[in-house]
Amino acid sequence: MIDTIFSHRSIRKYKPDAIPGEVMDKVLEAGSRASTTGNMQVYSMVVTRDQAIRKKLWEAHFKQEMVLLAPVHITFCADFNRFNKWCRSRKADPGYDNFLSFFTAAIDALLASQNVALEAEASGLGICYLGTATYMADRIIEILSLPEGVVPVAALVLGYPDEDPGLTDRLPLEAVVHEETYRDYSEDDIDRIYSEREASRLTLDLLEENQKETLAQVFTDNRYTRKDNIHFSRQFLEVIRRQGFMNQ
Amino acid sequence: MIDTIFSHRSIRKYKPDAIPGEVMDKVLEAGSRASTTGNMQVYSMVVTRDQAIRKKLWEAHFKQEMVLLAPVHITFCADFNRFNKWCRSRKADPGYDNFLSFFTAAIDALLASQNVALEAEASGLGICYLGTATYMADRIIEILSLPEGVVPVAALVLGYPDEDPGLTDRLPLEAVVHEETYRDYSEDDIDRIYSEREASRLTLDLLEENQKETLAQVFTDNRYTRKDNIHFSRQFLEVIRRQGFMNQ
Repeated sequence: MIDTIFSHRSIRKYKPDAIPGEVMDKVLEAGSRASTTGNMQVYSMVVTRDQAIRKKLWEAHFKQEMVLLAPVHITFCADFNRFNKWCRSRKADPGYDNFLSFFTAAIDALLASQNVALEAEASGLGICYLGTATYMADRIIEILSLPEGVVPVAALVLGYPDEDPGLTDRLPLEAVVHEETYRDYSEDDIDRIYSEREASRLTLDLLEENQKETLAQVFTDNRYTRKDNIHFSRQFLEVIRRQGFMNQ
Repeated sequence: MIDTIFSHRSIRKYKPDAIPGEVMDKVLEAGSRASTTGNMQVYSMVVTRDQAIRKKLWEAHFKQEMVLLAPVHITFCADFNRFNKWCRSRKADPGYDNFLSFFTAAIDALLASQNVALEAEASGLGICYLGTATYMADRIIEILSLPEGVVPVAALVLGYPDEDPGLTDRLPLEAVVHEETYRDYSEDDIDRIYSEREASRLTLDLLEENQKETLAQVFTDNRYTRKDNIHFSRQFLEVIRRQGFMNQ
């Protein structure tokens, strides 16, 4: 059993201490050991420590405080640029300017990111994924000078934790597992699956704080609204096109 | 250090032995501990053991032999269906029928899949990702009865290994890591990064076997051709639209 997997919590407060080079090397090497389609390794990890650049990234990532506090910021990118350059210099014609190739490269980047997250945690570091990497992909491309063929798909910050939160609650396992084929959810299933979360202290506090009747409304009306999702969908699709992945 | 990360190899030969229920439960629970956007857990894991269904999946996954040999097949899906149903039964209007929501859910599914892969390996199982899940998403949707709001993004097979291959070679770490911002690759960089791989016995055998002048040509002309990529890109985008994620 990998204890690190079962003790994961996102860390949002960090000590300013730098991460030693040999620790970072091992963490990044862990990323490179993840499965990758056809061993193409069509991803890149951009490791940012410089405070001025991290400040720009903080602005792009909705000014979440942890981005300023954590000493290291890694942006995981779907990257066919390196592979395309290799092909072109080896008398081969790369046909990777399409959506399937983007998605293949995104999978590579995301599997690598999870290895990085786990190896970091096993080394005593804390991590937090930033869901905003896709929302603000256009701005991140500018800040990190990402060329055509490269799209950011995830980001995480890491550093030594300055807090010790408990585990986040999860839905019961039956909620996310299907045996043999997909069995769709009845009203009763939904009630049962969400009952514990809905009755929790955390939920009651959120309802009070957001002045909402149900926890679902906190998500649909405040956290992840249709309006924002539509805006960022258009923007992200435009980024994918502009970075050269929509020729099909 | 998580040894399992550094000893990962894809396994393609499996013993027929079943995986005990308690081992599978722990492996799946590992998936559910991965980071998830806003703790929404917008993914599902479909666990298929039934031989008749696995035979259909084998056909969908380009008849790769390991799909028949491995006793368990897990399909990881981006899944907003459960979350949408919850919202609708809680007086909330879900705005998750767009591309950003699909991609958010895909990230959730892929991080969960890597936790599953690692916990499986730490339990003595072997695993192999199937890159064909996105290629054949429409057929997998039929086989597994995936409803609107659900798209397969990755699949892996698992079981007790019946082979003991060495580690797969990887590019040197400098190839996939960028310090501070992205530094684009010069011709010299490309030559240096790929030199070891290109000089390997494996490459020489592939050139001979495929009758090609360069390794890159094996990828562009045989393994991942422009024609196939365009075909599967159109098909996958159509699946994403049909499953209800293109309203923006």
